[in-house]
Amino acid sequence: MTNTNPARGMRDFLPIDVRKREFVIGVIKEVYEKYGYEPLETPSIENLDTLTNKYGEEGNQLMFKILKRGEKLQQELAEGTIRDEDQLSDLALRYDLTVPLARVIANHRNDLPKFFKRYQIQPVWRADRPAKGRFREFCQCDVDSIGSTSPVIEAEQIAAVSEILNRLGFGDFEVRLNHRKVLSGILEIAGVHEDSHSDALVVIDKLDKIGRGGVEKELKERGIGPEGLARVLALAESGTAATMNDLEDLVSASMVGAEGAKDLEQILGFSSEDTKIVLDPTLARGLSYYTGAIFEIRVPDLAGSLGGGGRYDGLIGMFGKEEIPACGFSLGLERILVVMEERGMFPDDLPSAPADVMVTVWSEETLGESLKLAGELRDAGIRTLVYPQTDKLGKQFKYADQIDVPKVCILGESEIEKSEVSVKDMKTGEQKTVGRSSLVETVKVD
Amino acid sequence: MTNTNPARGMRDFLPIDVRKREFVIGVIKEVYEKYGYEPLETPSIENLDTLTNKYGEEGNQLMFKILKRGEKLQQELAEGTIRDEDQLSDLALRYDLTVPLARVIANHRNDLPKFFKRYQIQPVWRADRPAKGRFREFCQCDVDSIGSTSPVIEAEQIAAVSEILNRLGFGDFEVRLNHRKVLSGILEIAGVHEDSHSDALVVIDKLDKIGRGGVEKELKERGIGPEGLARVLALAESGTAATMNDLEDLVSASMVGAEGAKDLEQILGFSSEDTKIVLDPTLARGLSYYTGAIFEIRVPDLAGSLGGGGRYDGLIGMFGKEEIPACGFSLGLERILVVMEERGMFPDDLPSAPADVMVTVWSEETLGESLKLAGELRDAGIRTLVYPQTDKLGKQFKYADQIDVPKVCILGESEIEKSEVSVKDMKTGEQKTVGRSSLVETVKVD
Repeated sequence: MTNTNPARGMRDFLPIDVRKREFVIGVIKEVYEKYGYEPLETPSIENLDTLTNKYGEEGNQLMFKILKRGEKLQQELAEGTIRDEDQLSDLALRYDLTVPLARVIANHRNDLPKFFKRYQIQPVWRADRPAKGRFREFCQCDVDSIGSTSPVIEAEQIAAVSEILNRLGFGDFEVRLNHRKVLSGILEIAGVHEDSHSDALVVIDKLDKIGRGGVEKELKERGIGPEGLARVLALAESGTAATMNDLEDLVSASMVGAEGAKDLEQILGFSSEDTKIVLDPTLARGLSYYTGAIFEIRVPDLAGSLGGGGRYDGLIGMFGKEEIPACGFSLGLERILVVMEERGMFPDDLPSAPADVMVTVWSEETLGESLKLAGELRDAGIRTLVYPQTDKLGKQFKYADQIDVPKVCILGESEIEKSEVSVKDMKTGEQKTVGRSSLVETVKVD
Repeated sequence: MTNTNPARGMRDFLPIDVRKREFVIGVIKEVYEKYGYEPLETPSIENLDTLTNKYGEEGNQLMFKILKRGEKLQQELAEGTIRDEDQLSDLALRYDLTVPLARVIANHRNDLPKFFKRYQIQPVWRADRPAKGRFREFCQCDVDSIGSTSPVIEAEQIAAVSEILNRLGFGDFEVRLNHRKVLSGILEIAGVHEDSHSDALVVIDKLDKIGRGGVEKELKERGIGPEGLARVLALAESGTAATMNDLEDLVSASMVGAEGAKDLEQILGFSSEDTKIVLDPTLARGLSYYTGAIFEIRVPDLAGSLGGGGRYDGLIGMFGKEEIPACGFSLGLERILVVMEERGMFPDDLPSAPADVMVTVWSEETLGESLKLAGELRDAGIRTLVYPQTDKLGKQFKYADQIDVPKVCILGESEIEKSEVSVKDMKTGEQKTVGRSSLVETVKVD
């Protein structure tokens, strides 16, 4: 017999799972719309050329590639001449939402406004080793603002993401904020050669995990003197948030660092005081393509982040001729869902039952009348289920109980005659008979 | 330079496209929810085993298969030992929503109610030759009711689908209705041997395209005497809708045919008189797995159908031990969109602009105030864009015009001082200055 589990790292979403996902996605969409971000969707499948070498060696490895089709492959198979992956694949599944965005921007430059703010909520696929909270198909919720270098862009993204998290009920998140140029300044002042900057950042990024001692050891192993970094490491280790002054002090001797600090100051200036933004001079983030501010959302009970992003002015233009400034923020839907589940944050009124009311069926003869009643309830916007066939009433109630439907309507011959309906509240067990014309009201109000 | 078009048969959806799709999907969801169908989602990727040989030879050909990953493939490539597709692929993209449903039912039998009504709106992928309205990634909107053989199931699906089409504004659709057993009865009476039933149905299904003469010719070519089918062909050709009496007459001499007719009579009895249901004894539909009623939605200006479905009591149990009754209906989102586009059926209030209001920026100094104003508008639920940087006011207006935003707020130094805002209506060109506290009202009411 066939294995009926979903494929490795994949998930089925039963109704309650879908409702939870759609609740979160609904909040994300609503807030992004309010901020003037527009929806964009790109195909799941891209030409392999579009994606290859855009995500480093790891990306090339983890990409799901699609087998070529048609006679040529069959012929090569028959002839035994297949030696190379290029002969096998021409397409691949979307690996993130940024490279497709860059492709769309290049392709539709004239159909899109010069400042293009888009959100995109779609699955991506990575053949990663599955682990807790890590899946091979997962949903990314991205916003990106294309075409402006103004710090307003960053401030608005931070505001939008904060509003989303507040509305979902995260009271305790913080937005960690840093700047690639601040990091460059710190490293420059510490005397780290530019060629070693990437290396150094990878190590500093681990501060959370391996502590100051670990970072210093690893820096030494890579031939980077950690002495010059003592101040920033001490600052981060102290656990107290860095102030704008701390940051300016740290980088005052570096021109590029000072530029970064000034940029952050503006972003903070444009941000609401209600948002908890924490300057974190050790925040490094993936790093390869960021060029300006970088940010990350943290909550206390999650080791990783709920999302993050930053400015990347070099990437979006990759398929075109001109460099196009851009800044983006990606929320991790799967992680948000994990934390919300653990904390019990979903609203009580998320439907757990397939319907609000179930109409029972008395007999073959009255079935039509039950359907008519269901139609009346549905016309009033009430989610209504009809027991689909005749059956003992006890069995119908048992079913209603199993599916957790809050109210059941009974429509027997006597009720039909008197134009009445009996309504049973499945929680209290209470049953009352009401006139057909006041049924909608009864079911709604109760 | 890389080709920046989407891959063959794939599409990018720009904001207005997404909004149109989401409008239709929103109506579909809302109606299905009201009828007590629950949402289900399955992964895009399935184990190849799950899908292979479920869709006939064509399905095996058109399925997008995923290349294996990892060292084994690399080794086989290096050794030149690849001769067979089995060595190359272990996964494939979802080809429809029915087989995954069957897998989920088998896998979650105990978590799901015995009558499970689910809807599922997700893309599927087929490596078909792209054509007008035919894409390699397209969205299916399926409802299926599992677990009951009652004709109530069919009647409810017809009612739900009809409500969707009515709400979308299709005033002229009809639901064509037939029954596999009626078809069997007709063929039985016509003296067609059971082994030739499938062949005969394939031919009869073409009546629309090749006419009566064509059908009779093809039937003869396949060795099927068309004489016995004269009545049904004449009936269909006459263009007048068959009545229940016609149907009963046609199949009265066949037991199985009479069973089918009785079933249809019940379905009609449970259906609203407002729904235009047309009995069509020549409707055959894909046919391979249907066992009972079959239906199809037709509109005058589309050669194909907007959707269709039927009862298939043998399929859902394929991954389990027991046979499970089921009936399903699939709406073709892409076709619905094509017709709605051609007929101009989308509502006027579908947003074409990224926002309802754009706030301009007077100067570097007032930028913060512009952001604050935008925040106030957003708090009132108004979709608001801020021009992201300082620029000549003329340029900002030109931009607002380009993106088609209906209202623009001007917040200069004098306005800020007096706690006022100037609002320009971009359609009329009219501009007026209002107190900050009545801005929301002004922008909303106007």
